[in-house]
Amino acid sequence: MTWRATVLTLFPEMFPGPLGLSLAGKALATGLWSLDAHDIRAHATDRHGTVDDTPAGGGPGMVMKADVLARAIDAAAADGRPRLLMSPRGTPLTQARVAELAHGPGIVAVCGRFEGVDERVIAARNLEEVSIGDYVLSGGEIAALALLDACVRLIPGVMGKEASSAEESFSDGLLEYPQYTRPGVFEGIGIPEVLTGGDHAKVRTWRQAEAERLTRARRPDLWTARENRLKTPAKSAEKPRDGG
Amino acid sequence: MTWRATVLTLFPEMFPGPLGLSLAGKALATGLWSLDAHDIRAHATDRHGTVDDTPAGGGPGMVMKADVLARAIDAAAADGRPRLLMSPRGTPLTQARVAELAHGPGIVAVCGRFEGVDERVIAARNLEEVSIGDYVLSGGEIAALALLDACVRLIPGVMGKEASSAEESFSDGLLEYPQYTRPGVFEGIGIPEVLTGGDHAKVRTWRQAEAERLTRARRPDLWTARENRLKTPAKSAEKPRDGG
Repeated sequence: MTWRATVLTLFPEMFPGPLGLSLAGKALATGLWSLDAHDIRAHATDRHGTVDDTPAGGGPGMVMKADVLARAIDAAAADGRPRLLMSPRGTPLTQARVAELAHGPGIVAVCGRFEGVDERVIAARNLEEVSIGDYVLSGGEIAALALLDACVRLIPGVMGKEASSAEESFSDGLLEYPQYTRPGVFEGIGIPEVLTGGDHAKVRTWRQAEAERLTRARRPDLWTARENRLKTPAKSAEKPRDGG
Repeated sequence: MTWRATVLTLFPEMFPGPLGLSLAGKALATGLWSLDAHDIRAHATDRHGTVDDTPAGGGPGMVMKADVLARAIDAAAADGRPRLLMSPRGTPLTQARVAELAHGPGIVAVCGRFEGVDERVIAARNLEEVSIGDYVLSGGEIAALALLDACVRLIPGVMGKEASSAEESFSDGLLEYPQYTRPGVFEGIGIPEVLTGGDHAKVRTWRQAEAERLTRARRPDLWTARENRLKTPAKSAEKPRDGG
């Protein structure tokens, strides 16, 4: 089954863009996923192709019109796929949500102007607002590229089995441990001995400790969230523990 | 002064990509910023163009070689610009950091494989690890596109003065208030009366209350951080308050 991506945008020529190369590009060429970029402007209702208008109540920027965007959304059959609006006001994207989306039928990604989309179309078309981070982009297109890249690498068949286990440590709520490769000495600095000693159990222990140390130091927010998760029995845990 | 972006990547053909269009593309064409994408592979030391190798200690994926990447970094004169490594292990990117970078001379963005870059080159070349979000991409390229797009729109002269004030509410630590525009009635739903009444003070009050309500509901983490900031006198406040 092909994982289907539909993008609604004012700049369809931005797609596939970087997703036409490398891992995602190979998977696109072999049909593991498909990508259609639809031009929102094609659904404008006047001959000038108007897609936005000034904000009610005044203020800077332009707001994408509810009627035009609704027509574009309705024309792109979702067929059960979630409809995501790329927006800095959205729920922060996580690897867990990426994995869910990658194992579903695909997505419809709506790229708004970041100044705003008429609130009424968000509610009327049940758009899931998703943020890729706490910064402002000029539009949703690069956010959609990031979301798609993250999803595509997790589509079954895109990466080898070996590589796909790599992100499990991220899913575990920890940052990755430090990595090293040849040459054995770089500008006078060697590789930690434990990694070249051939004792796999020691390597595992060292990597786990380094991942925990880095996460505590750099991302106390992730560390605390993980601690809380480990204390609370997960809803879907196979062996629920006592105490919640 | 032109804001200078240099990108080190295995996929120079991904640039400018989406940044060649729309707001960033116009600013690139008029010389408000410049973009050079350098191929890391050109700095490989063997005739096969080897840029990565298997991880010391075993495990999945490949690790980018310290020696090759160091040569690529040294060849791209930073000239005082910060060198950022796009990495999910990095400091989460914020709008405040974007604004700092946009008002500096530019950046050097290093795109690693997301499986890893040899730790020794990160330290030896003083790379600032930056993460655009808590998900895993196939490489640093789309992360660099996001970072550059966020920076470019804040380069003086790229947006009009009017538009640039729009993100100040985000910088203030709040999500944007809901936006509306014509038509006045969309699928039976009107625009909140306060926005069409013409009382600018009431509009401001309503928007501030909506921004606070949304932030509390959707992003308690941002809300708490903002509350703490408002309680503590800022280091660079023009009128420092007592109590810190």
